[in-house]
Amino acid sequence: MTTVAPAHEILFRVDLSKPWSQQQVLGHNRWHPDIPAAASVSPDTTFRMECKDWTDGQIKNNDSANDVRDVDLTIPHVLSGPIEVNGAEPGDVLVVDILDLGPFPGRDTEWGYTGIFAKTNGGGFLTDRFPDAHKAIWDLKGVYATSRHLPDVRFVGIPHPGLIGTAPSQDLLNKWNQREKDLVNTNPSRIPPLALLPEERNAVMGSLKGGDQQRAAREGARTVPPREHGGNCDIKNLTRGSRAYFPVYVRGAKLSMGDLHFSQGDGEITFCGAIEMAGFIDLHVDLIKGGVSKYKMTNPIFRSSPLEPRYTNFLVFEGISVDEQGKQHYMDAHIAYKNACMNAIEYLQTCGYTAEQAYMILGAAPVEGRVSGIVDIPNACCTVYLPTEIFQRDIEPMRYSVSRQTQVATAR
Amino acid sequence: MTTVAPAHEILFRVDLSKPWSQQQVLGHNRWHPDIPAAASVSPDTTFRMECKDWTDGQIKNNDSANDVRDVDLTIPHVLSGPIEVNGAEPGDVLVVDILDLGPFPGRDTEWGYTGIFAKTNGGGFLTDRFPDAHKAIWDLKGVYATSRHLPDVRFVGIPHPGLIGTAPSQDLLNKWNQREKDLVNTNPSRIPPLALLPEERNAVMGSLKGGDQQRAAREGARTVPPREHGGNCDIKNLTRGSRAYFPVYVRGAKLSMGDLHFSQGDGEITFCGAIEMAGFIDLHVDLIKGGVSKYKMTNPIFRSSPLEPRYTNFLVFEGISVDEQGKQHYMDAHIAYKNACMNAIEYLQTCGYTAEQAYMILGAAPVEGRVSGIVDIPNACCTVYLPTEIFQRDIEPMRYSVSRQTQVATAR
Amino acid sequence: MTTVAPAHEILFRVDLSKPWSQQQVLGHNRWHPDIPAAASVSPDTTFRMECKDWTDGQIKNNDSANDVRDVDLTIPHVLSGPIEVNGAEPGDVLVVDILDLGPFPGRDTEWGYTGIFAKTNGGGFLTDRFPDAHKAIWDLKGVYATSRHLPDVRFVGIPHPGLIGTAPSQDLLNKWNQREKDLVNTNPSRIPPLALLPEERNAVMGSLKGGDQQRAAREGARTVPPREHGGNCDIKNLTRGSRAYFPVYVRGAKLSMGDLHFSQGDGEITFCGAIEMAGFIDLHVDLIKGGVSKYKMTNPIFRSSPLEPRYTNFLVFEGISVDEQGKQHYMDAHIAYKNACMNAIEYLQTCGYTAEQAYMILGAAPVEGRVSGIVDIPNACCTVYLPTEIFQRDIEPMRYSVSRQTQVATAR
Amino acid sequence: MTTVAPAHEILFRVDLSKPWSQQQVLGHNRWHPDIPAAASVSPDTTFRMECKDWTDGQIKNNDSANDVRDVDLTIPHVLSGPIEVNGAEPGDVLVVDILDLGPFPGRDTEWGYTGIFAKTNGGGFLTDRFPDAHKAIWDLKGVYATSRHLPDVRFVGIPHPGLIGTAPSQDLLNKWNQREKDLVNTNPSRIPPLALLPEERNAVMGSLKGGDQQRAAREGARTVPPREHGGNCDIKNLTRGSRAYFPVYVRGAKLSMGDLHFSQGDGEITFCGAIEMAGFIDLHVDLIKGGVSKYKMTNPIFRSSPLEPRYTNFLVFEGISVDEQGKQHYMDAHIAYKNACMNAIEYLQTCGYTAEQAYMILGAAPVEGRVSGIVDIPNACCTVYLPTEIFQRDIEPMRYSVSRQTQVATAR
Repeated sequence: MTTVAPAHEILFRVDLSKPWSQQQVLGHNRWHPDIPAAASVSPDTTFRMECKDWTDGQIKNNDSANDVRDVDLTIPHVLSGPIEVNGAEPGDVLVVDILDLGPFPGRDTEWGYTGIFAKTNGGGFLTDRFPDAHKAIWDLKGVYATSRHLPDVRFVGIPHPGLIGTAPSQDLLNKWNQREKDLVNTNPSRIPPLALLPEERNAVMGSLKGGDQQRAAREGARTVPPREHGGNCDIKNLTRGSRAYFPVYVRGAKLSMGDLHFSQGDGEITFCGAIEMAGFIDLHVDLIKGGVSKYKMTNPIFRSSPLEPRYTNFLVFEGISVDEQGKQHYMDAHIAYKNACMNAIEYLQTCGYTAEQAYMILGAAPVEGRVSGIVDIPNACCTVYLPTEIFQRDIEPMRYSVSRQTQVATAR
Repeated sequence: MTTVAPAHEILFRVDLSKPWSQQQVLGHNRWHPDIPAAASVSPDTTFRMECKDWTDGQIKNNDSANDVRDVDLTIPHVLSGPIEVNGAEPGDVLVVDILDLGPFPGRDTEWGYTGIFAKTNGGGFLTDRFPDAHKAIWDLKGVYATSRHLPDVRFVGIPHPGLIGTAPSQDLLNKWNQREKDLVNTNPSRIPPLALLPEERNAVMGSLKGGDQQRAAREGARTVPPREHGGNCDIKNLTRGSRAYFPVYVRGAKLSMGDLHFSQGDGEITFCGAIEMAGFIDLHVDLIKGGVSKYKMTNPIFRSSPLEPRYTNFLVFEGISVDEQGKQHYMDAHIAYKNACMNAIEYLQTCGYTAEQAYMILGAAPVEGRVSGIVDIPNACCTVYLPTEIFQRDIEPMRYSVSRQTQVATAR
Repeated sequence: MTTVAPAHEILFRVDLSKPWSQQQVLGHNRWHPDIPAAASVSPDTTFRMECKDWTDGQIKNNDSANDVRDVDLTIPHVLSGPIEVNGAEPGDVLVVDILDLGPFPGRDTEWGYTGIFAKTNGGGFLTDRFPDAHKAIWDLKGVYATSRHLPDVRFVGIPHPGLIGTAPSQDLLNKWNQREKDLVNTNPSRIPPLALLPEERNAVMGSLKGGDQQRAAREGARTVPPREHGGNCDIKNLTRGSRAYFPVYVRGAKLSMGDLHFSQGDGEITFCGAIEMAGFIDLHVDLIKGGVSKYKMTNPIFRSSPLEPRYTNFLVFEGISVDEQGKQHYMDAHIAYKNACMNAIEYLQTCGYTAEQAYMILGAAPVEGRVSGIVDIPNACCTVYLPTEIFQRDIEPMRYSVSRQTQVATAR
Repeated sequence: MTTVAPAHEILFRVDLSKPWSQQQVLGHNRWHPDIPAAASVSPDTTFRMECKDWTDGQIKNNDSANDVRDVDLTIPHVLSGPIEVNGAEPGDVLVVDILDLGPFPGRDTEWGYTGIFAKTNGGGFLTDRFPDAHKAIWDLKGVYATSRHLPDVRFVGIPHPGLIGTAPSQDLLNKWNQREKDLVNTNPSRIPPLALLPEERNAVMGSLKGGDQQRAAREGARTVPPREHGGNCDIKNLTRGSRAYFPVYVRGAKLSMGDLHFSQGDGEITFCGAIEMAGFIDLHVDLIKGGVSKYKMTNPIFRSSPLEPRYTNFLVFEGISVDEQGKQHYMDAHIAYKNACMNAIEYLQTCGYTAEQAYMILGAAPVEGRVSGIVDIPNACCTVYLPTEIFQRDIEPMRYSVSRQTQVATAR
């Protein structure tokens, strides 16, 4: 039995002191159409959701990265929901306005973390260069983040849900599982793995019980990748003030979310690269009947927000698709972006940061990553845009100098 | 013998009525360290360069795309330069301020073109979906571009040189040629080819003559890809007001440029996706002695400009690294970006544009392409940001509606 | 005895159900150096303050403006504080970072109001044209505001404290009272009055009691005008993310604040023109010893925030200093701004709004008011910048039209 | 007889080597309905106009301000036009797109000047504080301006026509002359004068000759103030990319313009505060028949441009309406803005600039001037927004400091 929500209600509450499997109202950490709704709302409703951080509280506010090294990755992402939207049917579009989100107010909750995950437990974009676990803790002070582990950095984040999406239909779920299994089978022993396949251990499937729970857990899709329904897109610009359009695959749409980020750079390159936090998210939902075919939607669409920090002076690093061994790859944007990031990390080291600090800054600050040229064979050109205003000191290569003269011209 | 340039001089002139090989001062269309400087300047100098469009005038202002279909790709890119900067030595950094650029003023020159190149002659990012040649002509009216081939579109471009860079050293040139040849050898008969190898035919090598010209033409690198020295990066944000830092590989740096764009979307996806034009570019150059090691530079770095159009309301399309056949690829940003572009093209067709029109809009308008998530195995998530303000009518999915009441509250 | 605040503490609490004079910890509603600190903090401290709306809850969330008409103006502004900053001495500069502010979360508190005050009780910028009381109620939904009284308007506000400042010294207070009394004496019977002089009735002077309270109330400056210490500046851009520098006049600086605005247009033209609300404000304070002479400060200085809504398409209305009777005034920016506002109101009436609705939109939305030309004798030129993106429909005079053609150019 | 202009034609040419009265095609320097059109165009036409600087070349590129001191103010503003728009009738609205503007290219023309005018010959906003003549010369390098007289300042300007407007009808002209005469009569001997009345000496009235010329010169309105038709509004944001709507008062509209500015701060406070230059302006004109009543226009309206420099970090100075003698004025935005400017000038002196340099920076740089609070009796609050990015060194009061720690957290 689900509860109907009036306007402005907290529709999903979390208890930060308890693990995900022991919350009073159970959320989930796998995708499956059969997970029952935790609550229901009517279209044109505004409500609040509470979320734990994506790891279910495994990472602590301290100065050791052992928790990052030892994190149990069968638990994430802990997702709040699903929320059933009354009247939603497959083929509709669910319109979701992200009205606000942030950490829970209070001394014990206004902090976040960025982790470099170990190559043997999670990995990351530059895991060959950074195989070990590291962590930075951020203080969240209103709209600003600073870190005792990253000197002279202070910025306004672009808060967003790293993960938000509708439930897949059984057909779509089967398709996901099949294609990801096919990929893993091309190199099953790879570390880190090519994809995470369904894993019954630690699966939380909402209020499902007994055999239903076991069956759903066995086939529930893991939450790491973004997919057709949205999911873990980690798009930093899907921030408060933006409006997302999601395809609906099951009756009621079953919207879930989690993995709240106070800030993130494009790509979230350290894997746990955002400023990860627990907190709240305020949403408004509405429906466009038959919208999927009307707008020819395959993936979610969203409209950007008028409220993003206005950083405008960027130092930009380029990368092309030639790998570290000097081998030429054909139009490989992945390698090009890697090189752009590595170039930025090299540069930041000339400014006094360690490589790990630089890597975390790129992961967590409002950095833009662009596909700049994708047709100039054989080199893709990707670029990383680092806002210089986030540094509390000058990090630019050279200051422009103009010649000086003591006085303006004066009538004599 | 080269000429020393005073401030504000036109350092390189072009005659639009003559082909590249018959200009009074010869530029070049291949990269080679031995191409003599066309002119020289001292550090801290401001000067103007004139450029032909990248194809040497092969594309005309008319309503047929036959010229695009039949373009001779051994001629591009026609490059103005090289400019020798006095005192520049390998290991220095050449600081280049882009002060202004634009089309030549006048009724016959204030236009540009965007081409979809045929799969059999150039190709493009979505060449399998768009195998035939198409063209759109743009009218350039001050800061705005409009096109008689693309109704209801009007925007302020972000003008930039698609191509700018320093001359490679002989060692670097050899490395380029080797790695690209190795790539082509993996599939030599591919159409379009994996890379363009040195091609003597139609090579223009500045003032080199006879045997010197032939030798240089035989080993001169083609100008299509971006490389360590910059080159054809097609980075739209390297616009007027920005400052670029280039590694110097040869005495005098030998800076060359061309491929001026009135505007371009990130990725320049139709291959000839920008608004291509002939025109001028005003530069200021300076040197940082020993800058390459000081700043650990591998590729150029640049600082963004305070002068870009302030489009702020974007409709955003997502793509993930699952291909059209439903096959899962591992973190493939190329496929993810392709899907994001295809999703945008599908959407724009619901707004009344043809697929070709939509493709060209994405190539030419100030569209942003982002690497949003690059760690959520196995799916990269790329996004395309389409500014809605470039359309002269509403293209958004749904307008927000608020309930109406006739009057404000009034004291009675 | 005051309390020392640790980081992140709520330093001043309010009870929305009780009037200002009956709060557990008493704030104030007049300026006086002798009002004891309600709490104290050390430099480099972060803390939260709670505030009631400026009228002490006199205005209700309903559809009658009788409360606006009948408001008791001896009560405002109810101010939270003063906060003593340890070590602050006259001549220092108090550095105040505004980290966040917003309404109290919850269904009963996430709303605000805009009032047109009656000419006989408060008045406003255009009170001759709008002599009667009116009101609009706003729903605050995360970062957005909408109003059931103002159709098709929806915007992201620029939240800010309308009023924040340090306590005056006795000397400065005396100067204020004298100069304002001198002004009132030039036309003592004017309605609305030229200034509000000290008023003992309803004065709340913190924890002062008996004769101390009476004496301070008799000479306490009213809170309406901005003055050298800051005070009721109503500067919308002093928003979260900005940093203010205040002159210190008394030991401990004694910082107070209130009059929280969810949004406001430049000028706050309807007098109660902002979206007024109760709520919280998070601050960080620090000191620059001897900063007043170091920076030659007469009035507060502040640094703008990187976090403001990015509205960029404005419809702009001009006004010059010729009054409604056609009389020419010399460089009168007040009249010029009035005319610019009136021109905007006239225009909005052609879009279907009533004059009162238009007036309130100008008062409450993120509208910019500029002194554009102030030297071209005899006319000042002021301008009002109305962001078109706040309207959910097209309000521009004319759409640009480009000629249509069905197709792009195609190779045949 | 006037010439009909095809698209992209130069409709009005100037010869910089000749004074205004000896140009081949005569423009004007007074407003009068009878001045014949210099050329005519049809609606929906694009064309270029050339303009001299507003003083007709009296100010030179040198290091003496004697020319500013001795300038003949009966000559300005030299205006290019009028342009007749075919079909325009009184009551129509003339739609003018500003497509581009800039200095004439070339070493001798890419410069501009800012002048502090002497109190005895022109004056300015702060003329009591700055009674003597001063001058700064700017080098215009592409989109940037720098000055040998103002060290460490470099910015992208917001180029605009300081003066643009339609011709007044005879009735409107009479009204102007009467109201300005009435004002002057209140203090006829004031220096500087309260307004400039018609002045036959040096009047250039287009192709009018003999008695017609004399009569028109006797009653032609001076060009200094902005008025209902637009005119010398000096609105910096009416820049390239913006669209202005002008009321039409006479057949053919008769549009004229001049006083081109490479950049200007809000208020243009030194009188000749902008970066003044000669140059070109590209326009597109169109008509809205009957638009004046349709849009209830009294003064011009314009739509802002998407192309302005994106300076976003401002240091903000406040001013209130208490004068230097400590006298309280009622809601006087003029005095408040003056104080805000004076506060900024005081501050900039602590950064190493002279008062004159600071004054000129405020006049010429892209500084914003706001009417922040205009209802808080008795003090208006005006603010000056100084973009810190225009300085090539740090001018902020204090850098935020965060505590340092050598390393990120690491797993051990």
